[in-house]
Amino acid sequence: MYPDAFEKLIAMFERLPGVGNKTAQRYAFTMLEKSQEQLEEMVEAISGLSRIKRCKTCGFLSDEDECVICKDKTRNFKLIMVVANPQDVVAIERTGSYKGSYHVLGGLISSSKGIYPEELRIEQLQKRIEPSTEEVIVALSPTMDGEMTALYLDKILKDKNVLVTRLAHGLPMGSSLDYADDLTLIKAMDNRRKIENE
Amino acid sequence: MYPDAFEKLIAMFERLPGVGNKTAQRYAFTMLEKSQEQLEEMVEAISGLSRIKRCKTCGFLSDEDECVICKDKTRNFKLIMVVANPQDVVAIERTGSYKGSYHVLGGLISSSKGIYPEELRIEQLQKRIEPSTEEVIVALSPTMDGEMTALYLDKILKDKNVLVTRLAHGLPMGSSLDYADDLTLIKAMDNRRKIENE
Repeated sequence: MYPDAFEKLIAMFERLPGVGNKTAQRYAFTMLEKSQEQLEEMVEAISGLSRIKRCKTCGFLSDEDECVICKDKTRNFKLIMVVANPQDVVAIERTGSYKGSYHVLGGLISSSKGIYPEELRIEQLQKRIEPSTEEVIVALSPTMDGEMTALYLDKILKDKNVLVTRLAHGLPMGSSLDYADDLTLIKAMDNRRKIENE
Repeated sequence: MYPDAFEKLIAMFERLPGVGNKTAQRYAFTMLEKSQEQLEEMVEAISGLSRIKRCKTCGFLSDEDECVICKDKTRNFKLIMVVANPQDVVAIERTGSYKGSYHVLGGLISSSKGIYPEELRIEQLQKRIEPSTEEVIVALSPTMDGEMTALYLDKILKDKNVLVTRLAHGLPMGSSLDYADDLTLIKAMDNRRKIENE
């Protein structure tokens, strides 16, 4: 029904996660109202995607061999924070309170999805750990797969003589205690800490 | 944080309706997994958008002066179905049970959104009506704006000596009577018809 280029655009949007035909059409019609300049910008952004690769050290996105974080010599490379995905790096950076380095696994070990350690950047992590490395902070989501991956990492890093820690589990800030699920409440009780009132 | 081209892609997705930063990131990461070939296809589709215009007769999308529907000489041009948007043409065509022509207004008259008749393709509709035109079918959504536009069209087409009809209102097929809103029920009762059992 629609002109060819338009049908193709709808088909392209339909291939995005969670986008059905109705939404794809809505997106395509929005694109139709863009100026020639904006369209060219998009074309440029999409064309630029092929230049994006993984940082050879940490696995974060970069258009050079090393990412902006690994190139930043003011950071503390004795700390390595292990995360599942590049998005997690951005989330941690947003807090502004971590100045170490990262290691992006590229996913989590998952028996249900059939993802094995060999498919993740775990070997690279092992190779990155030097005698100067002080701490590996495992910052994975507190899900079944996240827990399994954390335990696996702890096991294979045993002989590296490095401190392996993980993010605290407990009640999220600003949440309501009676809305917390049981597992979170149990973790919060187990990990309770002395109130330090100075 | 992310490489430039990637940030630009996220920003581009964020400008789509109803897409926030999280969703835009998810879309961008999906794009990252596409093959070089698929990316080129997208670039082509977006570049092709600038060639898309409105059919000079009916206002539907086309990459030529006249759209596929207006060019189809097997259709009955004595019938003109008035719709708000190109999407409506596609919806009606999908049913496969209308073989007349269309007229796309490009929206609805709306006092709340401040859209006046002059901004829609209403004058073009008036000019299209010839002595041979048999019927103008007003196929607008049964909303406040749709009703207002339908009444306006009926008024300005009075002197054209053409039959102006509109789609029936009533219970949608397969729906549950007790879930119908009051207005729909009232319309359905007002427009009740004799059961024709052959």
